Order: sequence, then structure tokens, then C-alpha cells
Amino acid sequence: MSRQLHFNLFLHDTGHHEASWRLPGSDPHANLSLAAHQHLARVAEDAKFDSVFLADSPVLWSDPGRRPAGKLEPTLLLAALAVSTSRIGLIATASTSYNEPFNLARRFASLDHLSGGRAGWNIVTTAGDAAARNFGLQDQPLHRTRYERADEFLQVSTKLWDSWADDAIVADRTSGVHARSELVRAINHSGEFFRVDGALNVPRSPQAYPLLVQAGSSADGRGFAAKWAEAVFTAQPTLAESQEFYADIKRRAAEAGRDPDHVVVLPGIVPVIGATAAEARELDAELDRLIAPQYAVATLAHTLRVDPERLRLDEPLPDDLPSEDEIEGAKSRRTLIVDWARRDHLTVRQLIGKLGGGRGHRTFAGTPVQVADTIQHYFENGAADGFNIMPAVLPSGIEKFAGEVVPILQERGLFRTEYRGTTLREHYGLPRPAHRFVREGALA
Amino acid sequence: MSRQLHFNLFLHDTGHHEASWRLPGSDPHANLSLAAHQHLARVAEDAKFDSVFLADSPVLWSDPGRRPAGKLEPTLLLAALAVSTSRIGLIATASTSYNEPFNLARRFASLDHLSGGRAGWNIVTTAGDAAARNFGLQDQPLHRTRYERADEFLQVSTKLWDSWADDAIVADRTSGVHARSELVRAINHSGEFFRVDGALNVPRSPQAYPLLVQAGSSADGRGFAAKWAEAVFTAQPTLAESQEFYADIKRRAAEAGRDPDHVVVLPGIVPVIGATAAEARELDAELDRLIAPQYAVATLAHTLRVDPERLRLDEPLPDDLPSEDEIEGAKSRRTLIVDWARRDHLTVRQLIGKLGGGRGHRTFAGTPVQVADTIQHYFENGAADGFNIMPAVLPSGIEKFAGEVVPILQERGLFRTEYRGTTLREHYGLPRPAHRFVREGALA
Repeated sequence: MSRQLHFNLFLHDTGHHEASWRLPGSDPHANLSLAAHQHLARVAEDAKFDSVFLADSPVLWSDPGRRPAGKLEPTLLLAALAVSTSRIGLIATASTSYNEPFNLARRFASLDHLSGGRAGWNIVTTAGDAAARNFGLQDQPLHRTRYERADEFLQVSTKLWDSWADDAIVADRTSGVHARSELVRAINHSGEFFRVDGALNVPRSPQAYPLLVQAGSSADGRGFAAKWAEAVFTAQPTLAESQEFYADIKRRAAEAGRDPDHVVVLPGIVPVIGATAAEARELDAELDRLIAPQYAVATLAHTLRVDPERLRLDEPLPDDLPSEDEIEGAKSRRTLIVDWARRDHLTVRQLIGKLGGGRGHRTFAGTPVQVADTIQHYFENGAADGFNIMPAVLPSGIEKFAGEVVPILQERGLFRTEYRGTTLREHYGLPRPAHRFVREGALA
Repeated sequence: MSRQLHFNLFLHDTGHHEASWRLPGSDPHANLSLAAHQHLARVAEDAKFDSVFLADSPVLWSDPGRRPAGKLEPTLLLAALAVSTSRIGLIATASTSYNEPFNLARRFASLDHLSGGRAGWNIVTTAGDAAARNFGLQDQPLHRTRYERADEFLQVSTKLWDSWADDAIVADRTSGVHARSELVRAINHSGEFFRVDGALNVPRSPQAYPLLVQAGSSADGRGFAAKWAEAVFTAQPTLAESQEFYADIKRRAAEAGRDPDHVVVLPGIVPVIGATAAEARELDAELDRLIAPQYAVATLAHTLRVDPERLRLDEPLPDDLPSEDEIEGAKSRRTLIVDWARRDHLTVRQLIGKLGGGRGHRTFAGTPVQVADTIQHYFENGAADGFNIMPAVLPSGIEKFAGEVVPILQERGLFRTEYRGTTLREHYGLPRPAHRFVREGALA
């Protein structure tokens, strides 16, 4: 079988466009609704998507006056969705800066057991002082420090997931031996950030580890991805930038001694689908009209670390913005926005329209065939192994994509018509992690 | 309607007897099985139980060689069970010593949204050095310090649950106002253990707070319960001790300025049900024969902080045991065990038989009518508002209790035949917490 596309649905309430909740017929309470999430997950599963995904930050992220700001905790919401689905992967974002490895490793192992091997973890270091201030800190740790902690967090987590051998449990009623104790090991980790004795109190799960996913695109983020990630979400506004990023991640993975095919690159796209190209463009424009500019300007100013007064709606960005090096927050996002505005000579108003729609991701507006053509073009030209689908409006955007774009790609032999495996890693064509204690001979 | 009994099912794999997994027909993998937990929750819900409950500790608690030691993380498991049930309450244990308030308050608010108002939190401080060593510490914090942290943890958590007013969300599409920002407040907590700015990123949930449950019976534990708990689980081996505990908790709650009826006291009982009293006793004895004494002695020695060599199976406990004051672990449990052994003149072998069956809880062995009679006697004589049901063997123990004991109590008018409310607090007859910002007039 030829190389196959992979699709993830990025779950996001009423849609990724920040004004989507204001459309007639939207459910403005979808962010807190189990039923709304169950529906989205089932539509994606019926379309044979690899996975669904929830972003997250442990902070009230946006102004609750302006858009739905409440977010159910992702690992719990996905545990509920595990019961409502049977095959699709379930990827939760969680922060290495504001969790303890024992607790988080345990939650992902539990989700993997509950879902029969469908858990994934989008690993984030969480930018922003506001989050730090929910956890006893005055300011966020330095960008570099956050990544150092993330690296040790992964060392601890993988040791914990390896603390039970796959065949530790024997459950022999007659002898009264439930597990072979010698195959359950303390990890006795002691490092710069963590000291954790272990073993984990959850036996090795169907996938061994949750699928490890990463989305930071700074130099630190790419280095981390090359070392740890099996799937990478990324925001790339053009084909050329997607190709550059794709090649860079594969090269870095190879340099780290890994098989580049074992890092799946998934750019985010915002498909806006119309019966005609004109209809698609009209939907796009309607959404942009619903953005409240004063809030969008404040958000942009925060990301760029400038005084909002200096951003004029009908003028370009100021020339003297802080550089990426001066920012301890989401570095790569700042650079993406600035480069985009300068390259396309955008005014602040035009820029916030584009950011409101896809937050820097590529918008594909067109007919189903046009959207399928673009996806295929990226896939066959070194820009993507698949896509992180971010419909501007939900549930209609994924219903249209599933109903009208997926069948075209299936007919072209580029996307599965049935699931072949049962675990999330099997969907993405990735190997199950071997048990390191066994591999290292310690338990021979 | 006359005063009504309340029942909680304490979920525990193959049963509360430590040898239950060795019985023919048991599922020795039940501890990791969603289906096994779904079945138990549904049996309890069909019997109109108030709630199900999961104990927990963030550590590999028992020797995995001896019995099923893996435990799925409770908030995730209950999020899954929220989908599989519709009315029964869902109580998860979580530690105030090894969590951050923002993360845990958010998980319980999320569980309450996902379940439509059925979340409960059994608040524990987590005894033992082994748990501490999974979180960067060498030894557990002092007993008193753990309770001080727990108290501040509850202050922070309740502030976070009050950080959104009940009517904050307006979701007005036309004006683009999703929430009234002035009804979403930072909490700006700064105390001895925690600094948390807030607001929570989950709006106020159906029950406002999860039902607050507590189970420690030391002086510190009782003081904490009187201040915070709405339901109390307790291990009391005799009627007289249950009566003393019941009166003490109600008195302490009144002294703390609370309505004593708003603290529901639920002693744990281990019902062993037979068609005849002789059959019930035989089941009890069969289980005890399956206990492996060398492991049970090691556990007992650990709890009492003595050298295992000093415990002889056919002799009484040594006289010179460490006192409760010398123990920083589970103080009340140590005292319960020592008092019981001395009062009933038990040998070590007899003691571990009784502990293996119910871990210090009262075993009611008998016919369905005998078990119902004892429950009624406790209920009507100031010893209990209901019971935490801990079957020695699962699922058979809860199936028998639901099928044979519950109907007798329903016929006697002591237990509901239908749910009347939809939330966990409504099942227990408790009021929904008022919004403190509103009550204090700050948002008038």
C-alpha cells in the first residue's frame, strides 16, 4: 500500500475561528458540553481519523467576556470520550512546567488502559506569567529552563512507564502470586528538577507510553521534538515554510539517531469548504466581520510584547518590535506573526483577521476537490505526513470535511477506508516502545 | 418522609478481602478493567445507591507480588464512569499533599460538569514516606503539617470554585459578550503553602463544589472533617465506637457553626451474605484461609512501626508498641488495630484474618434479613446516617446486597426506590454551596 495520509481533529468548542460562537445556530456552551465533544469525536471516528486532540493551559487563557474561556481538563474529557468511541486516538495537552511527573505519567498510563491503547500526550512547557502565578511563582521560568525541565520530565515519565515489564502480571490464583515482583522496579530517579523513587502504581499499558506529541517550533522546541516526539503539530502559513520545517524536523530526528519516519509531521490547516470557491470565501469573510478588533489587538500586543496603543488598525506593525530573543513566552509564534505581516505587507486589521481565523495556520478555502488537491500537493511534496484539521466552525466544518473531502482522498488511495490497527500508534504507523529494562538486559 | 439511609459502594477490584482475587471465578485483572468498574457502578446505580467511591494514594501501595497493586487514577476512571451511568454520585480520593490546588480544583470542577453534578472528593493528606519519595521529598511532612496544608488547600480550592458567579455566562451572540467579566474574579490567594492568582479556567459547575468527603479519624482528621466535610467515611469495629464517633463528629460540626445534619456519617461495613448464617460464616472462613500470612504480617508490622520478627502468629501483639504520638503516618488506623487486638485478646493470626477481611471495618455476616436488621439498628441508634458498603468479594457481594438486602430496607421505608434529585448533594440531602462573592456582597 502506498504512503497514507494521517488526520487529527483539533477539538475546539464551536470552531477555531474566534468568532465562531457568534454564528447563528452555534452552541455557545459547547466548551463545557460532553455531548458536543462526543459528537465531534464520533464524526472524526466515522471518517477514520487517526486522532482527536485538545489544547490546554492551566490558566484562564482568554478574556471570558469575549469568547468561551472555560476549558474542561483534557485528560478527564478524553477519559469520558474513550467510553464514547472505540478506535480513534485521544491526545491531551499537559504541561511539564506545572505538573509532577508521577501524577501525570500515571494519568496518561490510566488513559491508555481505559481507552485500550489510544492515549497521546501533547507535551507543552506552557508560556506566560499568568500560568506561573497559579502555581506559586511570580514569573514564568526561562524558556530554556522550561525545556530543560521538560527533558527531565520525559526521562522520569518514560522510566515510570518502563517500571513494570510487559509480562510482570501473572495473576496465578493457585500460588497466590499476582505479579512477578522482580519485574516491577523502583526507578530511583534523582536529577536537577525531580527526585522520584517509583515504581509507577499503574502497570505497563497497551501502548507502553502514550503517543508523544509536540508542537513548539522554536530552536529549543525543535530539538526537543527531534529527541522525544513521535508526532509534531506545527503552524506553517505557506507551502515553502512547511517544506523547510518538515525537512528540518526529519533531519534533526536522524541526527538524534532516530528513524525520520518515526516522527510524523502534521501542519495545522483551517479548511473552509464551500460548494463553490466563492461560497467558501464568503463564509471566511462573514467570520472575520464578527471579530471584535479591540480584543484582538490586545491579544496581538500581548504576544508581541508591545503597548496596544502602538498598534493602529489600518497601519502595518511598528518596525521596532522586541526580537524573539527578548521574549520568554511563545517565541516561535511571535516570529511567525511578524514574518507573515511583513512578507504580505499586512495592516494590523488584516493581520488580526488572518490570526482570528486560524491563528497563523494555513487556511484552505475552496471546494472539496480544491481542498483535497491542496492536501495531496503538500503530502506529495515534502511538506506534510498528514494534517491537524482545525475547522473554523464546528461541528459543521468537520462534518463537511468528513463528508466531502475525506471520500475524495479515499478514492485516490491516500487515506484509509477502515482502521487496520487498534492503538493510536498503529494508526500513525509507529512502533510500540520496547521495554528498556529488558532491552538493557537488567531483567534478563 | 421519614429519615432515609444513604449507601456508598466502595469500589475495590475483586473485593475488599485481600485474598478475593484468588477465588475461583474472580477477574484478577479487574483493577485495570473499565468493564469491571462499569458493571459495579451500574449494579449500584440500579439499586439507587447515593454514590460509588475510589480510594487512592500516589504510590505503589501494596506488594504487587501478593495482590493486584495497579490502580487507575480515580478522577479519570470516574470521568469514564460518568458516561456509563446517569444518576449515581462519583467520589474520587485525591491528596492535598501531592497535588497543586489549581490543577486538582480544575479536575473536580471538570468531573462535575462532565457528570452533570455528580462529583465528590474524598480529601486525604496521604500518609507514608514512600509517597513522599515520588514527589521530591525524603520523608513525609509531619501529620500536623499535612493537615495545615490540607486546610489551606481547601481554602484555595473553594475560592477557585467561587471565582465564577453562577450567572457569569450570558453567551449573547448579538453583542458578542460571552461572560460578564465582572462576575469572573481573580482570587489572589497568598498563604503559607500556596500562592494562586486564579480565576479558575472552568466556570462554576452544577454542584458549585464537588461533595467534600473525609475519612481521617485522628483528632486532626476530626477537626478537619468538622470544618470542611459533608460526608465522612469511618472504620468503627463496634456499635459503641460508631455511636461515640457519630456523636463526636456532629458535636464538632455544631461547634464549628455548621448544621450537624449537613455532615453525613457513613461507617464502613463488610457485608458477608449467605442464604443461611452458616453459609455466610463459611464464605468468611474460606477467604481467611487464602490470606498469605507472611505478607499480612509484614503489612501489620509496617502499620505498627515494629520489626516484623517481633510479631508471632500465635501470640498476642507485643506490649511495647510505639504510641500514636510517635507515628507520623495513619495515626487513627494504628490505634484502631491495637485497641481491637487488646480488647478481643486476639493473636496476630486472628488479627490479620480480621484485617484482611475488612481492614478494621465492621463485618456483618448473616442472612439478608440479619444484615438489614443490623443496618437498621445502627441507623436508628445514633451510629450512622448510612453506610460505606465494602463487599469482601466483588462483583458478587454488591449483586447480593443490591438484590437481597436493599429490597428489605426499601420495604421498610428506610431507603429510596427511585432517585429524587439529579446531583450527588441532592442524593445525600445536602444544600448546594452558595456563591461566596455574592454572599459577601462583593459583587452586589
